[in-house]
Amino acid sequence: MNDRFWLLIGLFGMSAGAALILLIGKAKTPKEGLATILHGIVPIIAACSYFAMAAGQGSVMLPNGVPGAASPYEFYFARYVDWLLTTPLLLTALSMTAMHAGLRRPGLLVGIVLADVLMIVTALFFGLSAVPWIKWTWFAISCGAFLAIYYVIWGPLRAEAERQRADVRDTYRGNATLLSVIWFVYPVILLVDPEGLNLIGPTASVALFAIVDLLAKVGYGLLTTFRHARIADADLAEGAGPRTDAGPVPHLRGAARPS
Amino acid sequence: MNDRFWLLIGLFGMSAGAALILLIGKAKTPKEGLATILHGIVPIIAACSYFAMAAGQGSVMLPNGVPGAASPYEFYFARYVDWLLTTPLLLTALSMTAMHAGLRRPGLLVGIVLADVLMIVTALFFGLSAVPWIKWTWFAISCGAFLAIYYVIWGPLRAEAERQRADVRDTYRGNATLLSVIWFVYPVILLVDPEGLNLIGPTASVALFAIVDLLAKVGYGLLTTFRHARIADADLAEGAGPRTDAGPVPHLRGAARPS
Amino acid sequence: MNDRFWLLIGLFGMSAGAALILLIGKAKTPKEGLATILHGIVPIIAACSYFAMAAGQGSVMLPNGVPGAASPYEFYFARYVDWLLTTPLLLTALSMTAMHAGLRRPGLLVGIVLADVLMIVTALFFGLSAVPWIKWTWFAISCGAFLAIYYVIWGPLRAEAERQRADVRDTYRGNATLLSVIWFVYPVILLVDPEGLNLIGPTASVALFAIVDLLAKVGYGLLTTFRHARIADADLAEGAGPRTDAGPVPHLRGAARPS
Repeated sequence: MNDRFWLLIGLFGMSAGAALILLIGKAKTPKEGLATILHGIVPIIAACSYFAMAAGQGSVMLPNGVPGAASPYEFYFARYVDWLLTTPLLLTALSMTAMHAGLRRPGLLVGIVLADVLMIVTALFFGLSAVPWIKWTWFAISCGAFLAIYYVIWGPLRAEAERQRADVRDTYRGNATLLSVIWFVYPVILLVDPEGLNLIGPTASVALFAIVDLLAKVGYGLLTTFRHARIADADLAEGAGPRTDAGPVPHLRGAARPS
Repeated sequence: MNDRFWLLIGLFGMSAGAALILLIGKAKTPKEGLATILHGIVPIIAACSYFAMAAGQGSVMLPNGVPGAASPYEFYFARYVDWLLTTPLLLTALSMTAMHAGLRRPGLLVGIVLADVLMIVTALFFGLSAVPWIKWTWFAISCGAFLAIYYVIWGPLRAEAERQRADVRDTYRGNATLLSVIWFVYPVILLVDPEGLNLIGPTASVALFAIVDLLAKVGYGLLTTFRHARIADADLAEGAGPRTDAGPVPHLRGAARPS
Repeated sequence: MNDRFWLLIGLFGMSAGAALILLIGKAKTPKEGLATILHGIVPIIAACSYFAMAAGQGSVMLPNGVPGAASPYEFYFARYVDWLLTTPLLLTALSMTAMHAGLRRPGLLVGIVLADVLMIVTALFFGLSAVPWIKWTWFAISCGAFLAIYYVIWGPLRAEAERQRADVRDTYRGNATLLSVIWFVYPVILLVDPEGLNLIGPTASVALFAIVDLLAKVGYGLLTTFRHARIADADLAEGAGPRTDAGPVPHLRGAARPS
């Protein structure tokens, strides 16, 4: 079970997960549709990243990476491209859940996405840096951005979620807890893998990332898709959201009947 | 008529087209203003890309590109930067037309833009890859993303457009048809040009891209600008949209008269 | 006082500025919260850029840069990554001020951000280009995009601002004036520094950029934060904006009491 085996596990898991989410996820309300799109496209992007890595295009050999590491070592930069695109999508979906009744505090969405971009970009610099004090400063900055994300999730976003209907509130709590736990594993792997303290081997690193990626994108995405289906049913039952297949736009005179 | 000739055709065509669209396009309503900005800035970005390519800054020589190709060959990466920025703008404008009365299904806009980014980025990897099975897998993924775009345009976005006023609906149908036809030419050129099967020469490829780019950005943009002017007139006639030059904000007490 | 001295001034100034803005800035209304996030994250991004430059990771030696320049010269590309992210955030905050009562003309926000991205990217190409006519064409294009930004700020955005309450209008005028003056210094530095006409030395260039960056991000950000606090107080006094800590969402039946 070498690196490529785990990269193929990632590739097929992401592909199957994307297909499942897009099959199961509906768009009975526009909000459910947005959640389905976001959670469905995340594993598609990850599948592309895993294909690139499995094909040998998603990594570079860094000549003198890490103090104490056997150099050169293989740096999988494709992960960071994947994460730069997918983590904002997951946090956007979570923020939309917290503000289900309407995007009351757009600043929270903007803030959490910017903190997330900062976290990923500085983690990339951590991976690319060789001088220890520079390398670990990037790691500290990235962890600081991660703490800011935790703060937004459990502080103001949670306060918004508490203002929602009971089922939305429970979904937010469940998703925020699961995401907080799974995402915490990433900096731990970076800390111990060949990019960091080099306590585990390269294949163990690839295997761990594949497993956590599948949990964070496919497992989390599937669970969330089921939960959003229930929220959409409740929305329709209480008339809180429009049906996606509803009639003509009511506030526009002269709107056509759907043909 | 060498490569540079066609790149200069592209440069001057895009510059003239941008000037025309920005001259003709008005902002009588905020929605017409958004359409004008989007369609006007697209050829400006493309003109920068053509300037970079004509100046020799938009391409790299790839040492061993394509099976059967005379190597090395000139890879114009600037196109992909152009497309990465401009195609989401064009699809955004089209989505706004389909949801003219209000962004009822934001998930459709998010989904079509993400599929588009995936299509362009994987097309870039197709162009950069040399190993055949990797190269053509990227091509297949890019075509899959293109099919997803077609699906959104002719499925749910069209259903949204059918809910609009008759003139908006007709504009959507016309724009969606024109865009679907013109954009179909791109993967065909990529398939046969030196990046792909190498059935046509590099100058033919540059010439074809220049012509299709002008059609997709300037021709399409001008036509759309005229159509949006008519929609804006109809909006104002029925009072469906606010005048851009209207008085003080009505729902804000204490608003000042415009000075 | 060499390059690194000024880069450390930038690093510590940006870090302290970000901390101050995030301490002083509140979120009494969602709009104040958005302004605080935007102005607080701008110096954090700049601090990362200054750290990268101080650590030697934010520049490359260009072999034959500028006609008449001692070559090779040190090109600080990290500035452009910083600017690509931070200038759209500052212009977004300014546009939101102009349209305080509601995003009436989204096309203005889209247009000013796209012109800004064009300005920064073409300025990067100016810095990377060695052939004079190409180099100065990029400079001219970048200045053209800057003029477009001035036009939007002082034309349509100002017209929107004139429709707002007197205090919002005054804030817009003050911020637009300050930003217009400070930002004008950037192309002047690029014109005379080693990337351009090479009239000033590299250390003078780094010092000037550090000072102007601190003014544009920390000075401007602090002033704006105070002004937005006053706008939020006025919003709450007249009931024009919801309190961030308000009760359950009124238009959603079954909303929970905040716990």
